[in-house]
Amino acid sequence: MPNDQLMEQVKSQMPAKRWSHTLGVMESACILAERFGADREKAELAALLHDYCKYWPVNKQKQALLDHDAAGDLLDYEAALWHGPAAAVVLPAETGVTDAEVLDAVRWHTSGREQMTLLDKIVCLADYIEPNRDFPGVNKIRQLAEHSLEKALVAGFDSTISFLLEKGQPIYPLTVLSRNALLHD
Amino acid sequence: MPNDQLMEQVKSQMPAKRWSHTLGVMESACILAERFGADREKAELAALLHDYCKYWPVNKQKQALLDHDAAGDLLDYEAALWHGPAAAVVLPAETGVTDAEVLDAVRWHTSGREQMTLLDKIVCLADYIEPNRDFPGVNKIRQLAEHSLEKALVAGFDSTISFLLEKGQPIYPLTVLSRNALLHD
Repeated sequence: MPNDQLMEQVKSQMPAKRWSHTLGVMESACILAERFGADREKAELAALLHDYCKYWPVNKQKQALLDHDAAGDLLDYEAALWHGPAAAVVLPAETGVTDAEVLDAVRWHTSGREQMTLLDKIVCLADYIEPNRDFPGVNKIRQLAEHSLEKALVAGFDSTISFLLEKGQPIYPLTVLSRNALLHD
Repeated sequence: MPNDQLMEQVKSQMPAKRWSHTLGVMESACILAERFGADREKAELAALLHDYCKYWPVNKQKQALLDHDAAGDLLDYEAALWHGPAAAVVLPAETGVTDAEVLDAVRWHTSGREQMTLLDKIVCLADYIEPNRDFPGVNKIRQLAEHSLEKALVAGFDSTISFLLEKGQPIYPLTVLSRNALLHD
């Protein structure tokens, strides 16, 4: 378990409900790390940190991306995509966490990326299936996660893409590239 | 109507059912061109030519793309995406058609592209809604096409993306970019 000071610092960034979600993602990330042979401590740490910026004002997230030359094409898409990449660039100074694998798993936890690492996959999937999650299809994703990270993640991305289709919202191309790559894993 | 010789040449490239589809796309493209103020002759010509390579062996389609340095990322995706770009590169030599707007509408009729022209939109949409088409949601797309090319095309791309999600097949990123761009049109 990460130290109490870091836990408190992350907790202070978000409302109680999001903190419960964060604890759920930590729990699921640990289970998945053991199931699929990843580093449990790194998985738990990345899960703790993944939503660090989620409740920051979007302009503060945007500024963090711009300050670190990390905006890429993100500002052309929904602000809901910004908090992972923003966290990855502010966490070293804010928390002292500098582990590149952990920061990458934080950075890509919403969109995925074309060559997802084992740690990326675990944090992204834990975010979909942690115990508090309740959306259409979540139990199917949990079942798939018993045996295949990749099949479960494809089902997770499929649910995101279907949601965006229904809502008439843009689909982030990297999410599609992530899903396409996982089909062949 | 394009001349009989060209009609016969296109007809000879495909089975009877696809020729009926082609005639349907020509009919729908003419209606859409008049409805939305596009050049009717170009719309009809592009519609006639759009599936010129559809029933060519996929290796012949692939070779045409490679010979004209026009493969881009297409060979990483389903062969169903190749026939439009292949037709666009072989049609000048095979048919004498060199109009760039017509060839572009042929090239992008399956995937769309980020900045679709009026002619691109008409041919792509006509391909979705021609009278012989019968798939879930086609009537909704036809209804939208009464008033908005863009809303109808978004619904068309949505149906394609949903189909690929259900089938567990890769989604071509340009289709997503095309759809995203049309949401703002």
